[in-house]
Amino acid sequence: MIIFGVDPGTASTGFGVIHADGRGSLAAKDYGVVATAPRQPPESRLARIYRGLIELIDEHGPDVVVIEELFFKNNVSTGIAVAEARGVAMLAAAHADLPVVSYKPAEVKQAISGIGTASKEQVRYMTKVLLRLAELPKPDDAADALAIAVCYAQRGPAEARIARAASAT
Amino acid sequence: MIIFGVDPGTASTGFGVIHADGRGSLAAKDYGVVATAPRQPPESRLARIYRGLIELIDEHGPDVVVIEELFFKNNVSTGIAVAEARGVAMLAAAHADLPVVSYKPAEVKQAISGIGTASKEQVRYMTKVLLRLAELPKPDDAADALAIAVCYAQRGPAEARIARAASAT
Repeated sequence: MIIFGVDPGTASTGFGVIHADGRGSLAAKDYGVVATAPRQPPESRLARIYRGLIELIDEHGPDVVVIEELFFKNNVSTGIAVAEARGVAMLAAAHADLPVVSYKPAEVKQAISGIGTASKEQVRYMTKVLLRLAELPKPDDAADALAIAVCYAQRGPAEARIARAASAT
Repeated sequence: MIIFGVDPGTASTGFGVIHADGRGSLAAKDYGVVATAPRQPPESRLARIYRGLIELIDEHGPDVVVIEELFFKNNVSTGIAVAEARGVAMLAAAHADLPVVSYKPAEVKQAISGIGTASKEQVRYMTKVLLRLAELPKPDDAADALAIAVCYAQRGPAEARIARAASAT
């Protein structure tokens, strides 16, 4: 199964593509960011992200797109721009007829590090370990996109089995 | 000039299209909502909004797309979904190579009713008066989309002249 993780943002949207063999072995296929030019108007930056994600999804042919759920704490106006980019990422998944799965930040931390309150650095380190990468994935937006893809690899198939069992009873 | 106003939302995105003759006379060309099915996953609802707005923009050939700026107060999780829809509306504008102009809710209220703290009902009533409609535009999402289009008609051309004058000095 190919899993496409997205870490949305207007300036830079991270992506991380992993392969999960279904027996617990994970491998990073590709990761990086779709970067946008700071002086462009927001709608042009969103269009760049949309086109970039559509190309990457087309190239890698994933089975699912995974995006972190947003929650706003300190900076609500930055949060609005992130949510706009998140909407565009969801649209790119819909364009390819792919399901979107969302996880809360604490769920990602729990799935990867075993600790729901782990730091971002701990999660990035464990992402490197789980994907057997030689170095920490860079930039951070790409590392976070890989992390949410790994979260799905650990949780998604089991959750899908539980949902099927529940709907069959 | 044709102005395309949008009131974004996942369940129902309002649109309002007006014609401004440049001498203060305004006319409503079309208004309504792009409604989505509640049981569809969010990415499918966003795709419906995107396709619907692209069709409407294509049909009316506006010069500008106007969308209210978001601010989150009471319900942040509803706000995130609205911001995702807002991102998709901005993308629909970019798809047609149209500029997006944003106004704060208080700016819309001020431009239409003369009072920045006017109620939504007062703004909808004044929108009806300014567009010389026989009835209050319905549903509310369409009325709010017409209101932000009227706001641009009142403010946008003057603001553009000021910006040109400032950049010429």
